[in-house]
Amino acid sequence: MKLYMTDVSGNSFKIRVLASILNVPYEKIYIDWPTRQHKSPAFLELNRRGQVPVMEIEDRVFWDSTAHLVYIARKFGGEDWLPSDPLDMAEVMQWLGFAQNEVNFGLQRARGVLVYGGRPEVYERAREDGLKALDVLTWHLAKGHDWLALGRPTIGDIAVYPYVMRTPEADISLEPYPEVRAWIARCEALPGWLKLES
Amino acid sequence: MKLYMTDVSGNSFKIRVLASILNVPYEKIYIDWPTRQHKSPAFLELNRRGQVPVMEIEDRVFWDSTAHLVYIARKFGGEDWLPSDPLDMAEVMQWLGFAQNEVNFGLQRARGVLVYGGRPEVYERAREDGLKALDVLTWHLAKGHDWLALGRPTIGDIAVYPYVMRTPEADISLEPYPEVRAWIARCEALPGWLKLES
Repeated sequence: MKLYMTDVSGNSFKIRVLASILNVPYEKIYIDWPTRQHKSPAFLELNRRGQVPVMEIEDRVFWDSTAHLVYIARKFGGEDWLPSDPLDMAEVMQWLGFAQNEVNFGLQRARGVLVYGGRPEVYERAREDGLKALDVLTWHLAKGHDWLALGRPTIGDIAVYPYVMRTPEADISLEPYPEVRAWIARCEALPGWLKLES
Repeated sequence: MKLYMTDVSGNSFKIRVLASILNVPYEKIYIDWPTRQHKSPAFLELNRRGQVPVMEIEDRVFWDSTAHLVYIARKFGGEDWLPSDPLDMAEVMQWLGFAQNEVNFGLQRARGVLVYGGRPEVYERAREDGLKALDVLTWHLAKGHDWLALGRPTIGDIAVYPYVMRTPEADISLEPYPEVRAWIARCEALPGWLKLES
């Protein structure tokens, strides 16, 4: 199992933290971002999106972190991180959809404008979506939930964490969101959790 | 099983088409979009996002179409539409991630600017992402794949279809994408497929 990644990629982090928690060995292949190796012809052959993470597993190539999390959780996580019961599985998957949606196109895109020099005209709309992400999280957590699904840590938490944790880099303060900050701290206290570099 | 929906919602369509194919009965609850019922306090209590589709299943509420597709496929679809093997499940889920990503925030958002009067300044970036969606689809289909995952129809196809089918409403022609048009036709020829209103 090979993971094409960079240390700062939040989507790569999701895979690394789940593999760390479950003690799953894999080979790290570092992609050189400054020289745009992720846009090289060889890499685009693996992933036409030109992004990390990519995983090679048993001669198959997967280029979306949702797939990576699902594979590792179902293969190595028993019923803990993504259970097989249809209702419970759906409850976890809902948060993977949310991670690809308001979190990625809100918080992460707003951050991308500021950190990576993305198109400035999309910042306000991304910021609105990002605030919606924090509002939805607060709505859920404020009902007394410690975790996003099933009352326990799942790949839902792992998928949502990186770009919520980095919210301040999108010039959005987490100060008004105590429930979100407490949830971030709970994630970081899980055995095997890793530190995400900024 | 209740589905809160509208006839024109592409994300609601995904659920309706899978339920149609698998002959799964459910109760339709129409949300009145013109009067903004999806933003009413009662509806926001079900779904803080203020969007359809929402499903109520056995006293649990799910507010993301990824969750709905996963539930119906695993509960009623046997191994066909979302198999339980970890690698095969990951291959399908990759396309649900793609549907929430380039398709939703590219093709659907660009369309939303034109059809629903979204912020015009985000159109160009959304269009770029939408073209990337069509490029990734072509890259995959041009390798000789008839379907997005596993060489057969899965919920991956259903998740990606609606906003790809509506691409022309985003002022993006499908004329240069013959593989994508052929895949759309294959989807529409599946027994039980529905017609998505524009």
